[in-house]
Amino acid sequence: MAVYTDVSFEELESFLTGYEIGAPLTFKGIAEGVENSNYYLQTTKAAFILTLYEKRVNVADLPFFLGLLEHLAANGIACPLPVRSLNGAQSSRLGGRPAALFTFLNGLSLRRPDAAHCAAAGAALAELHEASKGFGLSRKNALSHDGWGELVEACLPRADEVELGLADLIRNAHAEITAVWPQDLPTGVIHADLFPDNVLFMNAEVSGLIDFYFACNDAYAYDLSVMLNAWCFESDVAFNVTKSKALIAAYCRRRELSKAERDALPVLAAGSALRFLLTRLYDWLNHDPHALVRPKDPREYARRLRFHRKVRSVGEYGL
Amino acid sequence: MAVYTDVSFEELESFLTGYEIGAPLTFKGIAEGVENSNYYLQTTKAAFILTLYEKRVNVADLPFFLGLLEHLAANGIACPLPVRSLNGAQSSRLGGRPAALFTFLNGLSLRRPDAAHCAAAGAALAELHEASKGFGLSRKNALSHDGWGELVEACLPRADEVELGLADLIRNAHAEITAVWPQDLPTGVIHADLFPDNVLFMNAEVSGLIDFYFACNDAYAYDLSVMLNAWCFESDVAFNVTKSKALIAAYCRRRELSKAERDALPVLAAGSALRFLLTRLYDWLNHDPHALVRPKDPREYARRLRFHRKVRSVGEYGL
Repeated sequence: MAVYTDVSFEELESFLTGYEIGAPLTFKGIAEGVENSNYYLQTTKAAFILTLYEKRVNVADLPFFLGLLEHLAANGIACPLPVRSLNGAQSSRLGGRPAALFTFLNGLSLRRPDAAHCAAAGAALAELHEASKGFGLSRKNALSHDGWGELVEACLPRADEVELGLADLIRNAHAEITAVWPQDLPTGVIHADLFPDNVLFMNAEVSGLIDFYFACNDAYAYDLSVMLNAWCFESDVAFNVTKSKALIAAYCRRRELSKAERDALPVLAAGSALRFLLTRLYDWLNHDPHALVRPKDPREYARRLRFHRKVRSVGEYGL
Repeated sequence: MAVYTDVSFEELESFLTGYEIGAPLTFKGIAEGVENSNYYLQTTKAAFILTLYEKRVNVADLPFFLGLLEHLAANGIACPLPVRSLNGAQSSRLGGRPAALFTFLNGLSLRRPDAAHCAAAGAALAELHEASKGFGLSRKNALSHDGWGELVEACLPRADEVELGLADLIRNAHAEITAVWPQDLPTGVIHADLFPDNVLFMNAEVSGLIDFYFACNDAYAYDLSVMLNAWCFESDVAFNVTKSKALIAAYCRRRELSKAERDALPVLAAGSALRFLLTRLYDWLNHDPHALVRPKDPREYARRLRFHRKVRSVGEYGL
């Protein structure tokens, strides 16, 4: 959580001449998002988020991300809407970086969502899946099953430094999961990272979905499996079936899951646990001590992965 | 610039039961201040800053800092006003840290203030000095001339690693400056760190002064000399006499400088340049690579120090 690129008021002023959004009243770097620099901007007209894209976001992907947000907002999803400049551009440049301006969403993300919050977030995911239909662009999921092999190779030699037995777990889980990975599930645009950080609440209602920089085309049910991992484990990594039941049921009220999708949930959940285990482990092992972000503990996802590998039927998720 | 202590929404909610400030709409960690964790909080009633005091702020100093802000606000200074809790406390605890809530000030800090901005900021400093009179508490300046010796000893052995000749500069300047340090100048509460970061502007007007965590009792003219260093050098470290003339003249219109204060400006300016050189050099040499803050380059202040040591009369500052 840091601001990587420092933007002066003078740079901001010059940037804002390209927009018709009022005069700035407040401009503060905010500690949000691990990939980009974000600023909170209040003007005489409204509040905005200014995002500068750092090296981890591929500029070639911006039309997908920004176009998706426009498409979703037009279809009723509460998400940041890119504010187009006076010349109609979705993005621009600032501080030597690609930059975009977004409408600001009120709301707070929860650290310890309860079952009702899980249900509201599950419903929001289904609405997102429905609303993304008809969006014209697509983006491959770079972190889907066929992208894990490279991370596995990079992490295996030092995995046991982090936890004894982790290399075996990863090697076995990777082989087993990819061998039975479901190929024919319904696909479309997914968020792919809908953690509690990325869902804003006002009281019990979802007021916004944010941080779409992992969005891509993949199986809808995979997106749901990410949420099972991110929302339904307690801080001691015990699985809370009340939460998963509420989350899945609320999802299904907006978008029904096929039998194939239901049956695939255990392997999808094991797969998404492996995906977050691998990226966290890679960042942990390759952490630049000068970086402004502290890496997250990969072991929490090793424990989730072990849980899903023991699941014998979707009933264990409350389905 | 970082957030050191992470506060969950649930912790915030519990903290806010002690205040009557409305329900939270937005809560974001902001990348501001090197000493503390700061959050921007928008409620149904107003905007606030929530500050968590990290280890560099001595809890015993909080009554001085918070009392000073109350005193200044009551005397017309636009500064953050501590919001007292329902039980009347100026500060409380959150996330295992002492914490205080402040009114939020609109405005933006400038990277490249022009002479008119320097004049507005100089006037604001004089108003601050006048308004602080009558404040009942006092705090020693830990970074005044009698506190430099320890930093000099700590930095000398490795100073030349940063710039050849830096150890000699520091040793000589320290001896010469402390030998002639003025003892009988008018003193009172000073800000001691009024850099452009800490002055908010709305258009050409000062809308707020912030970050009082170096405030202490010392010579008023020393505070002015800090501003000469912080506001009147260009990015190539060339001294801009138009800016210093504007800054000092505007200060004098609100609070006249005595002859002794004027005559002391060169040694005070050399002293404040040495003070920032020493703390930056110390942080540079003792930087924890895991810290979330990048140390500032001490050499900019070596160049300021060399400039002031060559000044033969206050006329060179435009006085």
